[in-house]
Amino acid sequence: MKLYELVTGDGASISPYVWRIKYALAHKGLAYEPVPLGFTEIPGAFGGRSRTVPVLEDAEGQVVDSWAIADHLDKAYPASPLFATPETRALSLAFDHHFLAAVARAMFGLCVKDIHDRARPEDQAYFRESREARLGGLTLEAFAADRDARVPALREALGPLRQSLAHTPWICGAAPGYADYLALGCFIWFAAVSTVSPLAKDDPVIAWFERGLDLYDGIGRELTLTPLAA
Amino acid sequence: MKLYELVTGDGASISPYVWRIKYALAHKGLAYEPVPLGFTEIPGAFGGRSRTVPVLEDAEGQVVDSWAIADHLDKAYPASPLFATPETRALSLAFDHHFLAAVARAMFGLCVKDIHDRARPEDQAYFRESREARLGGLTLEAFAADRDARVPALREALGPLRQSLAHTPWICGAAPGYADYLALGCFIWFAAVSTVSPLAKDDPVIAWFERGLDLYDGIGRELTLTPLAA
Repeated sequence: MKLYELVTGDGASISPYVWRIKYALAHKGLAYEPVPLGFTEIPGAFGGRSRTVPVLEDAEGQVVDSWAIADHLDKAYPASPLFATPETRALSLAFDHHFLAAVARAMFGLCVKDIHDRARPEDQAYFRESREARLGGLTLEAFAADRDARVPALREALGPLRQSLAHTPWICGAAPGYADYLALGCFIWFAAVSTVSPLAKDDPVIAWFERGLDLYDGIGRELTLTPLAA
Repeated sequence: MKLYELVTGDGASISPYVWRIKYALAHKGLAYEPVPLGFTEIPGAFGGRSRTVPVLEDAEGQVVDSWAIADHLDKAYPASPLFATPETRALSLAFDHHFLAAVARAMFGLCVKDIHDRARPEDQAYFRESREARLGGLTLEAFAADRDARVPALREALGPLRQSLAHTPWICGAAPGYADYLALGCFIWFAAVSTVSPLAKDDPVIAWFERGLDLYDGIGRELTLTPLAA
């Protein structure tokens, strides 16, 4: 099995969508060969079938899109299901949409220039052009200049996650599940690229993140991560 | 069984937390007697055990807090479970936290003065004082004057819900579940008090809301509701 990943200039796999699948594969005990791609290599890598990663390749062919991959894994390798029931899948999807809209967006506001700076040199022009188009005409540098002012927004966006973690060690309850993996993927992406440590030292999100990094022989610790709190 | 509810001056039950329990009871086919209370009657109604509704009373006594009530219902009346597994419960809780932080907050910004105006006359001074304390010193009238400017924020906050509804008829998938009930409760609260119709006519959230109002012999239609779209 091959997993096509997005890498930075130093070879670090940073896509949050790839990381949720890396955890899903580990959850099922499935081995795979990572295939590293830079931002500008991805659109041409799959014969037009996908412009994003992850893409999973197994004996049945290539599967594109992280949710389609998760569904494929549960169908083709049913042991240790990611989704015990259709309702679990629907609720994980609803959580994904809300978590990305609140948390990943707030993280993007803090680390977008850092991603540029860590991208492969040949990817930086593409990254700058595509991301500055989302920033209302600001350059990455102008947007990043206000970065510290956006730290409170990330801390506030994490309020709902803190509420869950006040009751159970994982978002999914007593044991980690796909909702944890997708959230962990966002934090790994952020901590792998960020040059800012935006959280308070006693934020319970940090203890959850550390538990997540410890899962499956510490696969989340293969990257050099910036601490979430200074 | 008795369910203590919050009512306005015309007797309408408006608490979103009460409504999720009304749907949970209907889901299980359990009959109950509603007990109406005004804002200022609630703190003295339970001997100091609760300052909020819903409170459920059955042969085992009074249960306070909507999540404790939901758990009690699944334990005491296990048929038609609200949460099929502990993971379903944890994911519903995580959804609750995110949905309230994004959507209920945006709704509050549109309808807080409307709630005041519909409260029982003897509750209005309490409501004004407690809610104006959350508005940074603004009066309800000053806050409501900017109401239309906050419509886009509600429409944007519903983006994640729309993403779920693009795949399945309910947040919980093929059939409605507790995550739908808690979201429906927010919309019933809003539509029961609001004097604004903030959504676009073709918003798929409206079709979901109408399906929800039809559930269980149309219990959600017992109130006069302001249309979500004009």
